Amino acid sequence: MGINCQKLSEAEAFSDLAEIQDVLITYNIVGKHKLERLKRLSKRFFITLVADNAFVVRSLSQTFQNSAQLQNVMVECDTGAGRCGVQSPEQACELALEINRSSGLQFKGLMTFPPSGRLEKVGRWLTQAKSLCMRAGLAVETISSGGSPDMYHSYEIPIVNEYRAGTYIYNDRSLVEYGTCKWKDCALTVLSTVVSVPTRTRAIVDAGSKVLTSDTLGLNGYGHVLNRPDIAVDQLSEEHGRLVAEKDIRLNVGDRIRIVPNHACVVANMLDEIVEVRGNLVRGTHRVIARGKVW
Amino acid sequence: MGINCQKLSEAEAFSDLAEIQDVLITYNIVGKHKLERLKRLSKRFFITLVADNAFVVRSLSQTFQNSAQLQNVMVECDTGAGRCGVQSPEQACELALEINRSSGLQFKGLMTFPPSGRLEKVGRWLTQAKSLCMRAGLAVETISSGGSPDMYHSYEIPIVNEYRAGTYIYNDRSLVEYGTCKWKDCALTVLSTVVSVPTRTRAIVDAGSKVLTSDTLGLNGYGHVLNRPDIAVDQLSEEHGRLVAEKDIRLNVGDRIRIVPNHACVVANMLDEIVEVRGNLVRGTHRVIARGKVW
Repeated sequence: MGINCQKLSEAEAFSDLAEIQDVLITYNIVGKHKLERLKRLSKRFFITLVADNAFVVRSLSQTFQNSAQLQNVMVECDTGAGRCGVQSPEQACELALEINRSSGLQFKGLMTFPPSGRLEKVGRWLTQAKSLCMRAGLAVETISSGGSPDMYHSYEIPIVNEYRAGTYIYNDRSLVEYGTCKWKDCALTVLSTVVSVPTRTRAIVDAGSKVLTSDTLGLNGYGHVLNRPDIAVDQLSEEHGRLVAEKDIRLNVGDRIRIVPNHACVVANMLDEIVEVRGNLVRGTHRVIARGKVW
Repeated sequence: MGINCQKLSEAEAFSDLAEIQDVLITYNIVGKHKLERLKRLSKRFFITLVADNAFVVRSLSQTFQNSAQLQNVMVECDTGAGRCGVQSPEQACELALEINRSSGLQFKGLMTFPPSGRLEKVGRWLTQAKSLCMRAGLAVETISSGGSPDMYHSYEIPIVNEYRAGTYIYNDRSLVEYGTCKWKDCALTVLSTVVSVPTRTRAIVDAGSKVLTSDTLGLNGYGHVLNRPDIAVDQLSEEHGRLVAEKDIRLNVGDRIRIVPNHACVVANMLDEIVEVRGNLVRGTHRVIARGKVW
């Protein structure tokens, strides 16, 4: 089984799990200490790395130059999201050549985190970069894109042969609002207790930004109260969520509600454990083993 | 030594620390399981509780009615922050009387989390509530307010005789922008490494919303880069922080920067450990023992 990690410590957190063999680290690894950890980890997993600049390629080469096997490296491409990544198909080809010239490394392909809703542009970008690479004599084995919002449209970029989706495991309010799924498809909810009903139209629950997080992903409010579309989670403090309704809020102290968070990924990261529930049956708890792995 | 907790599990996290004797829990405790935990904890600490409604008072009374000592309960007052709390001085007095009528409980005073910058209104509210309580024959031992932004103005509400401040321990960007402190007073910084410089005016660091959090507290951007006022942290993804400058950003891959977060409290909560540094000397690490204690 393969996993996609963004941080080295995330990959390390999985190193006890026998079912995981392949790890894709979609993040430039920078710094001597991290490179040493990466080298140790490469003995446990089959790792694919990314790079978007010559500094990273050089230090990866120094790290892996004496390894028995060549280390696979993909070129990260900024196809419009404006984060990491080389800025043009020409730069992608240049860096791919640089990887293949570096001892210990081998160019594997192109990787992008695409901006949602702009698949056509992403497709053109990657197609052009692939052509340039092939014209320069490079094999482009993998073209990796991702993102849960557009995952059911991934066929629109047929050049992509690897797709990384994360949020889809749980789904969340952002994906419902984007049209990717329905409320019934949302597996992660925050079970909260009403602790105060200060006014007829306001209630306070015991879930604040330390659970739901302040991520809005462009939405209004901080979550969706299941079965109560008339209620908005309009404000969070660290420990409180504030619920408001235009008319009577019809909640009493002690009532429990389920909130679908705006962004499932960051909510899972806030907690040490999640509880697995099927119907009304608690099936057990699971430790969130990669929580807080940010180094 | 006394501490102020908002969650029961926070207080439980401190139960091994001999130096802590007094605990103030500024949050309605609701639910049978939590009340049982609270009762156990009350054997270890001298606890003061709050309540803002009759339901909570009733369940606290059921919990403590057979205790040897009366349980101190304060009335939480909404003096303008719009979270928890009774809505008027009259309601405060009514609930205070209800507490004193309830077996096992004793009214201790008034507690509020004030809206920042509106001290005069808070002062009037609390003064009126205190007068009503005293006229009803109640002793109002403690009047508790808080908030780091206005802590140096706490003398403006002389009726307040307990002040709860949290953020001041570290200070943060929100307090600098509010005028409470200077950058040199900020003790918590996120040491980050530049991992990518995709364009002349953009750099990416390895600190995203899983460290800095998405809390803006009304500010633009997600933190202040020390000694680089020309740089804005304008966007976070989970693992990346995006830095932008109007002119040349003058950063290279591998450079390290320190970011003062918008909100120190929630950043400390993201990590299992903090590193103590004096000058250039690492003095050791400290476990964040109350992290993730949200139950």
